[in-house]
Parts: sequence; structure tokens; C-alpha cells
Amino acid sequence: MTELAKAVLAGQRLALARLLTQVENDTPQGREALNALFPHTGRAHLVGITGAPGTGKSTLVSQLVRAYRQPQDGSLPSRMGVVAVDPTSPFTGGALLGDRVRMRDLSGDPGVFIRSMATRGALGGLAQRTAAVVQVLDAAGFDVIFIETVGAGQSEVDIARLALTTLVIAAPGAGDDIQASKAGILEIADILVVNKADQPGVDSAVRALQAMLGQATAASGKHLLHAPQEDAKEETTSGWEIPVLRTTATSGEGVHELVTAIRQHQDYLKESGNWEQRDQTRLQSELQSLLQSTLLARWRETVCDAHSQQTLDLLAMRKISPLQAVERLLENNQL
Amino acid sequence: MTELAKAVLAGQRLALARLLTQVENDTPQGREALNALFPHTGRAHLVGITGAPGTGKSTLVSQLVRAYRQPQDGSLPSRMGVVAVDPTSPFTGGALLGDRVRMRDLSGDPGVFIRSMATRGALGGLAQRTAAVVQVLDAAGFDVIFIETVGAGQSEVDIARLALTTLVIAAPGAGDDIQASKAGILEIADILVVNKADQPGVDSAVRALQAMLGQATAASGKHLLHAPQEDAKEETTSGWEIPVLRTTATSGEGVHELVTAIRQHQDYLKESGNWEQRDQTRLQSELQSLLQSTLLARWRETVCDAHSQQTLDLLAMRKISPLQAVERLLENNQL
Repeated sequence: MTELAKAVLAGQRLALARLLTQVENDTPQGREALNALFPHTGRAHLVGITGAPGTGKSTLVSQLVRAYRQPQDGSLPSRMGVVAVDPTSPFTGGALLGDRVRMRDLSGDPGVFIRSMATRGALGGLAQRTAAVVQVLDAAGFDVIFIETVGAGQSEVDIARLALTTLVIAAPGAGDDIQASKAGILEIADILVVNKADQPGVDSAVRALQAMLGQATAASGKHLLHAPQEDAKEETTSGWEIPVLRTTATSGEGVHELVTAIRQHQDYLKESGNWEQRDQTRLQSELQSLLQSTLLARWRETVCDAHSQQTLDLLAMRKISPLQAVERLLENNQL
Repeated sequence: MTELAKAVLAGQRLALARLLTQVENDTPQGREALNALFPHTGRAHLVGITGAPGTGKSTLVSQLVRAYRQPQDGSLPSRMGVVAVDPTSPFTGGALLGDRVRMRDLSGDPGVFIRSMATRGALGGLAQRTAAVVQVLDAAGFDVIFIETVGAGQSEVDIARLALTTLVIAAPGAGDDIQASKAGILEIADILVVNKADQPGVDSAVRALQAMLGQATAASGKHLLHAPQEDAKEETTSGWEIPVLRTTATSGEGVHELVTAIRQHQDYLKESGNWEQRDQTRLQSELQSLLQSTLLARWRETVCDAHSQQTLDLLAMRKISPLQAVERLLENNQL
């Protein structure tokens, strides 16, 4: 094992930050450390937190971290990791000054480690890099890792699939948040939260979500997107009823109840065997994504530049279609 | 050329609908027709329309289609295609009854063809399938093709990159839409629209967008996401100033002005050479995506099941990491 990986296992924060940079940049050193650390992963409770911008999601994340650090039920404080993939999150620099101050506050706590992901321009796929960052935090011994994303788009759904427990945050409003939830986010929720519960319209938002839940469950079975891939076993769908909770993140109202619900879901996952099931599904997705990018990189090394350029030229002139271009590019390859 | 492709070129709607289904399902017949039709593409003005749910985007799309069909400036009506990828759009069935009635209204017009994409569960990547559907409509002779997406997430950005002109729709509100725009959508806009201009807060929304535009342009040059890939030429950035327009889609206010702006951008693209530049960038992205999925499919055909299963088992037990699993899976391959 590399010195850097050893230092991360020993709990050194500076080493952790350095390794995460290596891992995000996909350096040989980062890859070596990831391989060494991987057997130490699989222990953290990975919690995905997603929802549209404007639902108060980031403030809620910081309150949840605080609640896990200062439990009111006599349990031990958890070591908390936060991975912010949401480009509108204060963790990634996309927010108002007040939010940033609240975050900085958290980051003074040695039991909390916050990492924001560059969402564009970096190497590799975002979901791939997020998976690697989460693995390092998991190996480093964080008990709970929040993965904060914006609740829309396939890449966010891919990231949410990294989680074992997924929270979808809504807020009372013109009904649009709820419409958005209906359209693809609701299926991934284990816990639904109506934040900004001090604002008008909260009761109807809760009722609307409950009604949709009833329909979604009836129509398709729970957890459409957590659903297993072709060759994986079916997840046990009974035993967990998706709760709809209310919070007011600005005052902290309802946050301890939400922590209790997250822990109950963790217990449910472990008792039902779904913890392992979801873990395996995650690993398989990650494997497939890595396989795909590696195949492309290897093909690039073997391809003949002149042949490749000629093909691109024919495509540019629309003499061949993209499908025909792919055939030409691969015709001399063994694979 | 296949009979189906010929019928599509001859303008037969039923053939078009049938072929689109073949193309969406990636059948051999669909692939053959795509190859045959591809030389007939590249003529349509592809217009991406994106924005958060609740901005009135879908109503605006239907008004734009109407305005193109009944031009007030004496020009000929355009043949209009609409591809709805937005899961909250009434075209895809995610909306309120009133919206759907408005849409059905449009679909009685023989100069309008509407296609909604299944956003989940179908074969192949969404951006890949959308690109193919757009190519068929392009070859079928539609003058303008709207591609409607939700403005968030990498896959939506990928889809927006199919367009030659991109509209980003915002609405006055609590500032959240604008925050979302800031976080990744603004960079892809050629035209910004503040819809629901009859509601309070429209002036400050317009001012905020204009201020952000000033910053974005100063910081990074225009069109970050339309920016060329490694080997493509730099796009000429001068000559187009991103306008911020106001519309009230429910009454039609400002819609004809928006059509004028879209046409001005089309003229700008053609005169500056950026039409061809963007077209080529699009083709290259599509090629890369197809190449990647084809490589994976070919690898699957060659892999030894026992070796593959053993590797998956080792990964499942965390005895090897995902990276090490990829190495094992590829070690006997020539590529």
C-alpha cells in the first residue's frame, strides 16, 4: 500500500484531500491508492440528497450534518463526509453569502469532511469520479456520506444511484417542484422531504406527494431506478413505506426526525438484505462505466490516424453516416 | 434505399412515424434507413429550447410553432418538427390537461410533426436516440426542428448540443431559476427568454440575466459548451450579442419578436460560418458516443462467461477494485 493510502486509513485530513485530488484527476498514483483502499470500503452509509434548486436542499444538508454530529438520542456522533455535486450548492461555490458562511462553520469540525466536485471540464465522467471520491471517504472511515445533487437529468440520477438511501427534497410552491418530482425523481426516493414547511402550501404539497406515491407504487413497484439490472436479483420491495416528512431547515425544525428516518432506512436495508443488494448493483454500474471508457481509450491507442481522419472527412461531407463511420473506424480492429 | 426511407423523403407522415419507432428501437431496418437518409440531413434549423420546469416552456414552444406556421412578416410558413425530450412536457404526457389540449390542437396541422421521446427504459443513450430522431426529421424536410429539454443535468446539456440555436427560458421568481441558469445553462444560451412577463419581478429577472451575461462573457468567452472539442476550430465569438427577450406565452405577447430573434441567429450562423462549425462539432460528438457503445457491445460478444463471472465475484467480495476488475476483463482481449 502507498504511503498516501496508509495516511488516509490513519485518518490524516491533509493526505485525504491530496488523495482526492489525485483520484479526481485519475492519476496513476490515485488509481493505485484506490485499488489499495477498495477492500476497506462498503461500510459507510451513503445517503443521496437531491431536489430542484430553490428547495433549500443545501441548508438542509448542513443541518443534517449538525444533527448527526450532535445526536439528541444519546447515540455517538457520526463522522460525516459530504460530497457536493450540485453546481448550485454553496459547497461548490454556487450560492449566496449566507449559505457559504453556514458551510464554513461546519468545516471547522474535525469530524466533518466536505468535498465539492467540479461538474465540468474535469477528466472522466462525473458519476465515475464521484464514485471514486465516495470510495476514498468510505475507506477513510466516515460513517455517513452525503452525496448532494440537483434532482434532474440522467447524470444526476446516475449519481443518486451511488447512494444506499436517497432523499428527495421538495418545497411548497406553484406545483412545479412536484411536477418535476413526478417526472423521474420520485422513483428514486426512499424518503421524501417537504422543506420550507413554515411556508404556505405545505399541506397541499405533502398531500400531492402522498397521492403520487400511492400511484407510483401501484403502477410500477417501488424503486424503479434502484431496481436491479438484468442479471441482479430482484430487490425485496415490501417492508419500507416511503415517508413524507416536513422540515424547516432554516430553523432546524424536523431535522432530528429526518435523521431518525434515515437511520431507520439504514436498519431496514441491513435487515432486509437490500443493503448488500444495492451495494452490488452500484459496483456493477461502476464496472460497466469504467469498462466503456477504458475500451474507448484503448481503441484510441490502436487507431491509424490517416484512416481515422479520412473517415471523419467523409462524415463531415455527409458521404457516410455516423453509423457507417463507426463501422469504418472499427473494421481493422480485432475486437 | 429502403421503401420506408423513400416514403419518408416523399413526405409520408405514417412512414415517418414508423421509421422513428424503428430508429428509436435501433433496429437493423432503422439503421439502414438512417444511413440512406443521412446525406439528406444538415438543412433544418435545429433549435434547442431548455429551462426549468415551471417556466412555461411548453406553452411557449406551442406558441412558437404557431407563429412559424402563421408568419406575420409575409414570409412562407415553415414546416415544423418538435422533439420533446422534457419529461415534464405535455408532449411527453407529463403535464396538465389544459396543456395537452393546446398541443393536440397543433398536431392537427399537417405542417407540424410532434415526437416525444421516452426518457427512460428504452435502448441506447437518450442523446444518441434524440440525434437519430432529429436526423430523420431533418431528412424528411422539416425546416425548423425544436428540441425541448429540461434545463438541468449533463444529459440535457448533451441534447442541447444537438441544436444550432439554443434558447434558455427563465421566469420571474424567487431568484432560483436564475441561480440555476447561472450554474451551467447560461453558457449554452444563444437567446435568453424571460417568460411569464406579465408577472411581478420580470424587470429584475431581466436585469439579473443581463448582469450575469456580462460576467459570463467577460470571464470565459461566449458559448462555453458549444465550444469546440480538442481538434475542432475555435468558433468565431464576435458578431452575436445574446439578447434577453420577454414573452408571455399564455397570451402570445412577444412570441413573434422571439421568432425574429431565432431567425436572426440563423442568419448570423450562416454568415459567420458558425453554422457549419456547430454542425461538425455535433457530428463528432455523435460519432464518439456511437463508437463507445459499439465498442462495449463488441467486447460483450467476445468475453468468456466463466472468466467474466469470476471477476464479478471477486469484485462483489471486494477482493479486487473496479479498476482491477476492468483490467482482468480486458486482459485477454487484443484491443
